Amino acid sequence: MNPPENLIKEIQKNERFYIVPHVFPDGDAVGSALALREALESLGKEVSIKSRDPLPVQYSFMQGAERFSNDFTFPEAESHVLIIVDCNTLERTGVKDVKFKKILVIDHHLPGDSDYALDTTVSEADTVKDHFSDAHWIVSKSPATGLLIYHVLNALSATITKSIAENIFMAISYDTGTFRHSNTTADSLFVCAKLVDIGVNPSYIANKLYNNWSEAKFLLFKKMMSQLEIYKPDVSVAVVTDSMFKETGALGEETENFVNFPLMVDSVNLSVFFREFSPQKWKVSLRSQGGINVAAVAGHFGGGGHKNAAGYRVSGTLEEVKGMLLEKLKML
Amino acid sequence: MNPPENLIKEIQKNERFYIVPHVFPDGDAVGSALALREALESLGKEVSIKSRDPLPVQYSFMQGAERFSNDFTFPEAESHVLIIVDCNTLERTGVKDVKFKKILVIDHHLPGDSDYALDTTVSEADTVKDHFSDAHWIVSKSPATGLLIYHVLNALSATITKSIAENIFMAISYDTGTFRHSNTTADSLFVCAKLVDIGVNPSYIANKLYNNWSEAKFLLFKKMMSQLEIYKPDVSVAVVTDSMFKETGALGEETENFVNFPLMVDSVNLSVFFREFSPQKWKVSLRSQGGINVAAVAGHFGGGGHKNAAGYRVSGTLEEVKGMLLEKLKML
Repeated sequence: MNPPENLIKEIQKNERFYIVPHVFPDGDAVGSALALREALESLGKEVSIKSRDPLPVQYSFMQGAERFSNDFTFPEAESHVLIIVDCNTLERTGVKDVKFKKILVIDHHLPGDSDYALDTTVSEADTVKDHFSDAHWIVSKSPATGLLIYHVLNALSATITKSIAENIFMAISYDTGTFRHSNTTADSLFVCAKLVDIGVNPSYIANKLYNNWSEAKFLLFKKMMSQLEIYKPDVSVAVVTDSMFKETGALGEETENFVNFPLMVDSVNLSVFFREFSPQKWKVSLRSQGGINVAAVAGHFGGGGHKNAAGYRVSGTLEEVKGMLLEKLKML
Repeated sequence: MNPPENLIKEIQKNERFYIVPHVFPDGDAVGSALALREALESLGKEVSIKSRDPLPVQYSFMQGAERFSNDFTFPEAESHVLIIVDCNTLERTGVKDVKFKKILVIDHHLPGDSDYALDTTVSEADTVKDHFSDAHWIVSKSPATGLLIYHVLNALSATITKSIAENIFMAISYDTGTFRHSNTTADSLFVCAKLVDIGVNPSYIANKLYNNWSEAKFLLFKKMMSQLEIYKPDVSVAVVTDSMFKETGALGEETENFVNFPLMVDSVNLSVFFREFSPQKWKVSLRSQGGINVAAVAGHFGGGGHKNAAGYRVSGTLEEVKGMLLEKLKML
C-alpha cells in the first residue's frame, strides 16, 4: 500500500505538528500516535500529541507513553499542521474552533463519524473525494491505522526503531484481536513479521493487551458470567448493573470486551451485553457471528454499527429494555 | 529454514508412507499430518495417516479430516516409510513392534519423550545426533511442527493448495495461541502471511479454534470461575471436581485451556488448576508468568515440564492436595 503523494509532501515540507487521535483513544489510536510522533521527531520535526482524553492506564507501558498528553490546548495553531489519526472527522477528535495551518488525516474507519472499522466487505474507494482535510489517507479495508502509519513512515524513509515497531505492533494487534478478527490481512501479518525482526516480542505485547485485568474487573466478569443466560437457539444475554459496578469497584471502560466472551460457545451466534452506565440507562452491545444483521437491530433502537458489531442506548428497567430487545429479535 | 537434505531425499525416493502423529493429537499434530498427507499424494505417493487416537471433534472441520484415521494397523509396513510428526520418539506415537522400511521424524519438541515445546530459550542444536530414526528434522525453536511442514513442502516443490494452507495455518495458530505465545517468531508470521495470500481466512480458523465451546464446557467454566480463589500476592487456584463434571456433562479434555484464564488478571503470576480425573485423583497444571519456575514445583511432586508450564498427578482429598501445594509454594 502506498500513501498518497500529497500527504507525504505535506509532512515533508512542514516542521511543526500536532497529532490528535479520537476521543476515548484505544490501542490503535494510541499506538499510531506514539509511532508517528517518534518518527516525525527523528526527522527533525517539532511534534506534540494532544488528546482530549487521558491515556488509558493499560497503555502506560508503551514506549513514549509520557508524550501522550491530554493538555488539549493548541498554542500557535496557525503555524502547526494537525494530523488526525484513527478517525476522519474533527468531531471525533473533540477539536473545536481552532484554526490550523493544514489538516491531514490518516485513518481506516468508514468515512464519517463512525467508530466502526471492522467490516472489510465495504467497497468504497480507498480515497475519499471532497474530504474537508488538506490531504488524507483513509483506507477502511486496512485492519488498523497503525498499519497505514507503517507505510507512511516507510514513504518518509523514517527509521523504524524498536519502540516505533512496538507501538505499531500494538496498534495492529489491538484492532485485529492479534490476527483473529475478519479484518486480518496478509499485509498486516507481513508487516508484523518485519516488526518482530526489528525486535518486537509478540508475547510481551499480548500479555499487556490481554492479561491486564484488575481484580475488580475479574470480580465483575465472574458476576456477569454467573448470571449469563442463553436463549435457545443461539442468543446469549449478559448484564452488568450499576450495583455490580459499585460492589466490585470496576470501571465502565473495563467491560469493553465482555460482549465477546459468550461467542466462545459454539451454539451462540448473537451475543447481547447490557451495561447500566447510570441508573436505568443502558448501553447495549450486539455481536453477531452468524447471519444476523445486528446493525439493523441497533438501528431499530436508534443506534448503529455494522452487520457483525453494533450498539445502542436505551432507558428503562432491565426487564423493560431486555424485553424490548428479545421481542425485536423474535421478529427477525 | 531449510530441512536436511537426507530427509527430503528419503521422501523423494520412496513411494509408500504412513504418517503418524503423537497420541492424543492436538491442533499442530492434526494440521501437520493433514497438510503433509495432501502434499505427498499430490506428488504421486501413496499415503495414509494412522493415529492411535481418534481425531478430536473440534478438528473435524479441517480439509481432509476424513483421512485422519485411527485404524492403527500397518499392513505391509516393511514396504512403507513411517513419518512421525509433532513428536520424536516411537513411544509418543503409540507404535509398538512394527518393522518399517524407514523411519523419518519432523518435530519441534525437545528431544525425548516430551510434550513440551514452549521454551524457546533451550539452546540445543537444531539437529540431534544419534537419533534412532533414518532421517529427522527436530527444531525445538520452531513454534510449531506445521511451520516445519511448510518448509519441507517447499523443499519438495509441492504446491501449497488452499486446503494445505489452512491446515498449516491452523497448526501454527494452535501452538502459538495465534501469535500470542512467547514461541511466536518472525518466520511464523511471514509464512502465515503467505498462507493468507493463498486464501486462508484467519477469522474462520480462529473461530473454529477458540469459539467452539460446548454448552457443557461453558457451564463447567462458570462453575470453576465462581469458586476461583486468589491467594495474595499472586497465586490463583482453580478447581474442577468429579462432581462438577457429572453435573455439567463436560469432558475432561474440555478443560484443556482453563488454567490460562486466571492469568488475565494483572496481579496473578502463577495459575494453578486442579482437575479431578477420577475420585480423589488429580491432574495439577501450573502456569507461570513471572519468575516462578513451575517445573521445579511440579518436579517436587513427581511431575515435570518447563519453567512456565508444568504439571503433576497426585491423590488425596482436595484439601490435602491443595494444602501440600500451597505449603510448597510458601517455601519458594
